Amino acid sequence: MSAEGPFFPGIQKIPYVPDAGPQDVLCFKHYNAAEVLLGKKMEDWLRFSVCYWHSFCGTGSDPFGFSTLLRPWNDGGTPMDMAKKRLHAAFEFFTKIGVKYYTFHDRDMAPEGRTLEESNRNLDEITDLALQLQKEMGVKVLWVTCNLFAHPRYMNGASTNPDFHVLAFAAAQVKKGLEIAKKLGAENFVFWGGREGFLSLLNTDVAAELKHMANFFKMAVAYKEKIGLKCQFLIEPKPKEPCKHQYDYDAMSVIGFLKHFGLDGHFKLNIEPNHTTLAGHSYEHDIVMASAFGMLGSVDSNTGSPDLGWDTDQFPMDIRNTTVVMKTVIEQGGLQPGGLNFDAKVRRESTDLEDLFIAHIGAMDAFARGLRNAVRIIEEGVLNKMVKERYRSFSSGLGKMLEDGSSSLEEMEEFIKQHGDPKVTSGKQEKYESIFNHYL
Amino acid sequence: MSAEGPFFPGIQKIPYVPDAGPQDVLCFKHYNAAEVLLGKKMEDWLRFSVCYWHSFCGTGSDPFGFSTLLRPWNDGGTPMDMAKKRLHAAFEFFTKIGVKYYTFHDRDMAPEGRTLEESNRNLDEITDLALQLQKEMGVKVLWVTCNLFAHPRYMNGASTNPDFHVLAFAAAQVKKGLEIAKKLGAENFVFWGGREGFLSLLNTDVAAELKHMANFFKMAVAYKEKIGLKCQFLIEPKPKEPCKHQYDYDAMSVIGFLKHFGLDGHFKLNIEPNHTTLAGHSYEHDIVMASAFGMLGSVDSNTGSPDLGWDTDQFPMDIRNTTVVMKTVIEQGGLQPGGLNFDAKVRRESTDLEDLFIAHIGAMDAFARGLRNAVRIIEEGVLNKMVKERYRSFSSGLGKMLEDGSSSLEEMEEFIKQHGDPKVTSGKQEKYESIFNHYL
Amino acid sequence: MSAEGPFFPGIQKIPYVPDAGPQDVLCFKHYNAAEVLLGKKMEDWLRFSVCYWHSFCGTGSDPFGFSTLLRPWNDGGTPMDMAKKRLHAAFEFFTKIGVKYYTFHDRDMAPEGRTLEESNRNLDEITDLALQLQKEMGVKVLWVTCNLFAHPRYMNGASTNPDFHVLAFAAAQVKKGLEIAKKLGAENFVFWGGREGFLSLLNTDVAAELKHMANFFKMAVAYKEKIGLKCQFLIEPKPKEPCKHQYDYDAMSVIGFLKHFGLDGHFKLNIEPNHTTLAGHSYEHDIVMASAFGMLGSVDSNTGSPDLGWDTDQFPMDIRNTTVVMKTVIEQGGLQPGGLNFDAKVRRESTDLEDLFIAHIGAMDAFARGLRNAVRIIEEGVLNKMVKERYRSFSSGLGKMLEDGSSSLEEMEEFIKQHGDPKVTSGKQEKYESIFNHYL
Amino acid sequence: MSAEGPFFPGIQKIPYVPDAGPQDVLCFKHYNAAEVLLGKKMEDWLRFSVCYWHSFCGTGSDPFGFSTLLRPWNDGGTPMDMAKKRLHAAFEFFTKIGVKYYTFHDRDMAPEGRTLEESNRNLDEITDLALQLQKEMGVKVLWVTCNLFAHPRYMNGASTNPDFHVLAFAAAQVKKGLEIAKKLGAENFVFWGGREGFLSLLNTDVAAELKHMANFFKMAVAYKEKIGLKCQFLIEPKPKEPCKHQYDYDAMSVIGFLKHFGLDGHFKLNIEPNHTTLAGHSYEHDIVMASAFGMLGSVDSNTGSPDLGWDTDQFPMDIRNTTVVMKTVIEQGGLQPGGLNFDAKVRRESTDLEDLFIAHIGAMDAFARGLRNAVRIIEEGVLNKMVKERYRSFSSGLGKMLEDGSSSLEEMEEFIKQHGDPKVTSGKQEKYESIFNHYL
Repeated sequence: MSAEGPFFPGIQKIPYVPDAGPQDVLCFKHYNAAEVLLGKKMEDWLRFSVCYWHSFCGTGSDPFGFSTLLRPWNDGGTPMDMAKKRLHAAFEFFTKIGVKYYTFHDRDMAPEGRTLEESNRNLDEITDLALQLQKEMGVKVLWVTCNLFAHPRYMNGASTNPDFHVLAFAAAQVKKGLEIAKKLGAENFVFWGGREGFLSLLNTDVAAELKHMANFFKMAVAYKEKIGLKCQFLIEPKPKEPCKHQYDYDAMSVIGFLKHFGLDGHFKLNIEPNHTTLAGHSYEHDIVMASAFGMLGSVDSNTGSPDLGWDTDQFPMDIRNTTVVMKTVIEQGGLQPGGLNFDAKVRRESTDLEDLFIAHIGAMDAFARGLRNAVRIIEEGVLNKMVKERYRSFSSGLGKMLEDGSSSLEEMEEFIKQHGDPKVTSGKQEKYESIFNHYL
Repeated sequence: MSAEGPFFPGIQKIPYVPDAGPQDVLCFKHYNAAEVLLGKKMEDWLRFSVCYWHSFCGTGSDPFGFSTLLRPWNDGGTPMDMAKKRLHAAFEFFTKIGVKYYTFHDRDMAPEGRTLEESNRNLDEITDLALQLQKEMGVKVLWVTCNLFAHPRYMNGASTNPDFHVLAFAAAQVKKGLEIAKKLGAENFVFWGGREGFLSLLNTDVAAELKHMANFFKMAVAYKEKIGLKCQFLIEPKPKEPCKHQYDYDAMSVIGFLKHFGLDGHFKLNIEPNHTTLAGHSYEHDIVMASAFGMLGSVDSNTGSPDLGWDTDQFPMDIRNTTVVMKTVIEQGGLQPGGLNFDAKVRRESTDLEDLFIAHIGAMDAFARGLRNAVRIIEEGVLNKMVKERYRSFSSGLGKMLEDGSSSLEEMEEFIKQHGDPKVTSGKQEKYESIFNHYL
Repeated sequence: MSAEGPFFPGIQKIPYVPDAGPQDVLCFKHYNAAEVLLGKKMEDWLRFSVCYWHSFCGTGSDPFGFSTLLRPWNDGGTPMDMAKKRLHAAFEFFTKIGVKYYTFHDRDMAPEGRTLEESNRNLDEITDLALQLQKEMGVKVLWVTCNLFAHPRYMNGASTNPDFHVLAFAAAQVKKGLEIAKKLGAENFVFWGGREGFLSLLNTDVAAELKHMANFFKMAVAYKEKIGLKCQFLIEPKPKEPCKHQYDYDAMSVIGFLKHFGLDGHFKLNIEPNHTTLAGHSYEHDIVMASAFGMLGSVDSNTGSPDLGWDTDQFPMDIRNTTVVMKTVIEQGGLQPGGLNFDAKVRRESTDLEDLFIAHIGAMDAFARGLRNAVRIIEEGVLNKMVKERYRSFSSGLGKMLEDGSSSLEEMEEFIKQHGDPKVTSGKQEKYESIFNHYL
Repeated sequence: MSAEGPFFPGIQKIPYVPDAGPQDVLCFKHYNAAEVLLGKKMEDWLRFSVCYWHSFCGTGSDPFGFSTLLRPWNDGGTPMDMAKKRLHAAFEFFTKIGVKYYTFHDRDMAPEGRTLEESNRNLDEITDLALQLQKEMGVKVLWVTCNLFAHPRYMNGASTNPDFHVLAFAAAQVKKGLEIAKKLGAENFVFWGGREGFLSLLNTDVAAELKHMANFFKMAVAYKEKIGLKCQFLIEPKPKEPCKHQYDYDAMSVIGFLKHFGLDGHFKLNIEPNHTTLAGHSYEHDIVMASAFGMLGSVDSNTGSPDLGWDTDQFPMDIRNTTVVMKTVIEQGGLQPGGLNFDAKVRRESTDLEDLFIAHIGAMDAFARGLRNAVRIIEEGVLNKMVKERYRSFSSGLGKMLEDGSSSLEEMEEFIKQHGDPKVTSGKQEKYESIFNHYL
């Protein structure tokens, strides 16, 4: 570690201490990376990733308050000097916390220059260092994304901006982002359309904007193929904030959009549960729906508060939630090449450097517990057997024909004339809930 | 009028009295059916429809209280006698209020029998009378739908029920519904999946249920074509209630589902704004989005209260909302063969018979004002010209190529290298809002 | 058991089997009534109560569907016959599930007659039987309440009805309710103002209605004292539903109302978490706030779904929530004379009789786990010590003077002139969350 | 105008042009300051005020984007130089828009220094200039408030901070704020507790914090009286954001708090409708409730979007809302010494300087229309007469005794025995809505 580090001098590599006491918050009590469950190591089921923006660029400012998180790596020197310090701090953190992946926006990594060319040069220089550190420490990029929302030029949208000039700038930025993704071996590339939506329908041509966004994605797909970039493209839904309405509202909205424009073969979804709950769904809803449509690519594992109407990006600490998520992940055979990216930030009041570790450890343990619970649920098979039995009538006879799409309304009417009214069967929700609780 | 009517003895055909005073609530002050705006009669732009269930079957009971609306037509006699009285009352109402369309569920019209066959016979008998009254009074069916949610057999879903036997019953019921639609000349047929969703993910196989629902719709499409039924199929989205989650959550969810299963050529959407706001969107959102995707078929014109989390089905009275809706309707050339169906109920405290008229008149006037406002906005063209100017950069050069889908990221980068950073342009939302207010 | 029982023939008294397997849902795995924790039996900390309306009167109907729960005790005979069967079934259930308390509305227990006098006679007759069964089986009344919302007369409110005649009827009903409470030895008496609010401000005189409600309560207090009824009066807040707005919106609204009208010495609060979340708060919020103001009297222990905007009255199954609630309860020394009343209903799809047991057992176990967790948290003292340390600066010097209310702004300014700017201290939320998770 | 102004060179004093066209957005079409309605000038009913923070300090940054509003008065020079330029720009704006009042936080007006003493000196210097400009231009201070939330020291609260040292700093700051209020002749003084609440209950002692807040207010009351400051104290409720929960959740929460701690004689409420809707109420709810309790002091006239869960502080443009607010204001005899303060910001995309005028003009016209509508409603008296009639039964007999608090349950029972069951009376909500629409 260098560039003036270490930045976390009192903290060693976080160990696994399963019998640690309540106050021992700088060790894992549940996450044991190399332990094998259902034929895979925990670290391969979980594929944890640290996000760069919250953990290394975040300052703790909010709409009502100034910065509270005064990080040593964000302090002093030129912007490029700080970018390098920040990178060293980040890799020190990745190594000590024992996470193999990280994610970043282009503008987190290197400062924006006065021109696109200068921005690109900055990015080249810093990602040279990133590549070197990746190799030295065995850390990889889960995904790269381009920040197409923070700069004032994007205030009215990037790919959906009413001014073509802005769209062109965003496209040029994505071109470079794809090149960086290739250079660093990123396993995925994310599009989050924070400003792709509207503030008011009065000044917006929705149909035009949707078409522009689709054509923008088509250019990205073409360029990806041209340069031989092998990563998975992901779209991250969010319903609103900063926009009043984002086109990528939730999983089903994005699926509808992709299919309408013939783009569904090229993209999967990066689901963030805090966005899901802001869209009015339950925590796990979009993960389950995306998986049901074969479109779940990766997860931004965080949480909001159900009583709050904005993105709080808290570290996920609820064992029930992590259990349900991991059950879905296991049932679709894992998330690879996606992962569980902690798009989460310590509270702006959590000003100690150690809080960054405590928060990640708490969340990793919460997911490890979720994984262990889900594995037990699946291995014992009680719940899944009950569900299978519940749908048994579709495995033979006319039920099977319906399943296969080969039946008709006339046959259905005939069936009822023969068999009369169905009997009512209890859904037994409370029994399912009680059995689920058995595993928590 | 007969079958013991008249049911609204003190009320005459509602007249148009544009200069009526504030207390004159039994006349139209704005709705003038035959008046021509933008080349069409008001009644043809608005295509109002009265719904049968709320206005003629509703009792005013709610989850915390018993019936309050003791209607003379729901009183006494056998179920079939009452069904006939109800039909006469309804047609008296349609005629006096001056609305040309109505909508109904199969089970609103005729009581369910002990067997499917008996239910079908009941329906045959009552719809014979309906057909006769339609012809006599010049009233038509905007749409028919099947009630696949109220009977206990459907408590766990109809087309998504885990028990195939229930799905078969629902299919048989839809077969009959389609036949009735043909007999009565319905211009549309609606599917509302009130129980097509889940209460708990723990006992649900989402992927299986979605496939069953799709195959159910395919059977309906096939039978519709087989019997030569010419009407438009519509799906009505709703996010939740009674389910915890309905698969037809909102416009984009349904569009995603239809496109995934190759059904989008056969269906359009029937948007209910109260459902839209329950999904977390603004009042007009799903109408605008459905229209942008070419999928807006009809509107259930009602409203909820933005501070309430359940379906209140109030009569739409907000002039701003009706203006925005009618602007969208005019811009897509009208709703035909759909219309504006008042899926709205008088409050359970509005126990006077005249309240049924007052509510419909208030809502029809609100839409008439919305129509007049929208016509002025479009005829004067101030707002639309501002919007057009805002997107002008896509009408030539590389912007036009993007619009046409023929540009590349490399060209975009080249454009930025030549033209540099875009300048920031005000979105001028408050100006749009002020001008919009000019027309209210 | 008689009056045609047993009603739950295959089910015995529910045993405590701590090592039961996942599928064993008809035994307690955590609730061990007689076990002593922190000096009290579990049953005395928890004071569970079964509610009569959901579990014995509920039919499973919802706004979109008919009855699904066809209970043998609601079937056949005169209303008074059924009332007696229902009472026997209820006491069989109380005894088998091992719960010592129950709660009811006057109209759950006995059918409303054609006149107040007849209703009162019905109530007298059935409560004679209830009293006998209470004595025989050692079951007690946690609280009684009057149903002032279901009958059409109450559609515009009871104590806030614009028509004095309705208020008078409600008052007469409460008079009888108080007499019944005395007769049965109820430990509390609850007022839930389901219709005390408004549907529209346009037709409402809010100030007049609030005053009427206060004067109504004053009459109840006077009569309670007159007849020597010793129970605790409770108000149950709910923000909305069935009203658009209820005056008893949440804990703080009720506290404000009570203090404004000088009633706060006579009432405490009965908090229902599902109502709390409907008011936009977190699950435990109103329990914590009511306790902080010394006003927490009892808890209607249920849950909603955070993504739903209406009262679902589900059985509470979330261990995190039950832990937080029990921590608050222990810290205020218990709930007595209040308790944990299961104002919860099995899903309308849970149609098996055993589901009623499974649901209560699951919830009782969830609370038993919450109690055990809370006891460990309090006994080990880690969290409470951290909190105490956090506020240490108020225990001496000028901080202590502020605490005592004896300091001035001038002294504060002087303190800052001497001591300068405070230093920033981490709130350490993630550390608290991690330690809390240790106990789950 | 000086200090390098004019800052709005192309814009003259905004005239009243009632017949202006849709595109004329730089004139009033409805607001005619000197016109007399119901015996008062429009400007005296409306008492408009411009807020300093949004309109002169705001930069357009949001949690996802950088500054977009590059104002000439926030550009260049020392912080104190800019503070003076800003003040000149503000007074130029006040004069040209024709608003007589403004509001500010201490830290909007003058930059915070390194010490409290330096901050106070800065404030002294800038408020000397403010006082001079006030006199020259005839502009007054509606209210002053202290910013006790933006500085990192306040991240865990000001008067509710767990660290007494922070509370002391806040108290010292309020002492100075009160002195400035006296110097400038402020008519009110506002407390907004943005950080007075909690992020997590786990690390919070709610009862202690509430007591500290109360004692903090008591010190402020004492000092106000000591220095002879004549203004009205106001508390501004907000449910959440930035906190997860603010103690001043809504009007009733604050009323409960004030009454509990005996502070209700010293405070009224400053209601912001955007906060009201965030608390789950309808737009006008807290204005109506505060007025009903005699506690409505002033209004922060803005709006949010009902579909968004955070404070958007938009300019109020909805005529229905402004009509309802003004009806309440007229009925309580006006807001004086409070007013209608535009706590609203132009969208961050509204980057033109003229947008600041357009937004204020649009909102002032919306309120002028609301006032004109409310005056007509009240003068014609149709609605109020209907309401009065609705409650007529409380004006005589036993109804009057209930109204006066002199009746008993026994008398009520006797009344029902004599008069029997009340008859059901329609609430006629749709009729009220239709008549209300007549006036819009």
